[in-house]
Amino acid sequence: MLEIERKFLVKSDAYRMEAFDKKEIIQGFLNTHPDRTVRVRLSGNKGFITVKGRTDAEGITRFEWEREIPAVEVRALLEICEPGVIRKVRYLVRSGEHLVEVDEFAGENEGLVVAEIEMNEINEFILKPDWLGDEVTGEPKYYNSQLSKKPYTTWKNV
Amino acid sequence: MLEIERKFLVKSDAYRMEAFDKKEIIQGFLNTHPDRTVRVRLSGNKGFITVKGRTDAEGITRFEWEREIPAVEVRALLEICEPGVIRKVRYLVRSGEHLVEVDEFAGENEGLVVAEIEMNEINEFILKPDWLGDEVTGEPKYYNSQLSKKPYTTWKNV
Repeated sequence: MLEIERKFLVKSDAYRMEAFDKKEIIQGFLNTHPDRTVRVRLSGNKGFITVKGRTDAEGITRFEWEREIPAVEVRALLEICEPGVIRKVRYLVRSGEHLVEVDEFAGENEGLVVAEIEMNEINEFILKPDWLGDEVTGEPKYYNSQLSKKPYTTWKNV
Repeated sequence: MLEIERKFLVKSDAYRMEAFDKKEIIQGFLNTHPDRTVRVRLSGNKGFITVKGRTDAEGITRFEWEREIPAVEVRALLEICEPGVIRKVRYLVRSGEHLVEVDEFAGENEGLVVAEIEMNEINEFILKPDWLGDEVTGEPKYYNSQLSKKPYTTWKNV
């Protein structure tokens, strides 16, 4: 129930060649408060509801609770989510012991590509692929809950 | 997934004699926005997560989605809920074709007793028990999501 995650920008699309799977994700938020976000997600043909707590000071760990629910129920819940549903394609890549999830955002977040690495411990060694760019762990503007309200294409100096 | 419900104040405690069951309820909110509330509830030893949409103009119908989840998970989620966890004892009473849920609030809402009747159709006939008082259907201050923020004991002229 504790998520430990680091987040990076991406320098090239070489991850596409290394990916062993990809899926389309559509997600909305029932709440985007920093202390408690509630997300519903369609990932391929699966559905999920996820609650996350506040991120710790370093921006790495966070309470997380998730349940799989029928896709048809996610579709109904998406109807009442906050404005700003997020669409992205997620590529799954293995790097050493870790799974790297590379999200290519679409729609109002088109152009943004972010890689997330979920870890078991905070100080775990990460074998970084060449295409991994600057670390943005803990930067609120890259949170999906924030991207739904202030999408990438509206940022200045992008 | 559509909840049709009427709500009443209660004039006496005669419902206690008529109740066929009662249970303790502890609940918190992950969101109290009028367009989308997210509630977690311990009801006896069962746990639930519930999403409700905006109430219609008459205050009677509302989108509702609910899943049973383990009580231990509700306890973890209660930790990150908005301040103002609600405690109440719920009495279950049958009246004609309907189930009447009478909630005796505790803590900061001590003194408030509210009866809810869930219906299948909006204009359904309700056999009203003698102890049922004024109807308060659609009055936001009686929503549990509002009682968590502005509890009954803080109301003026109560």
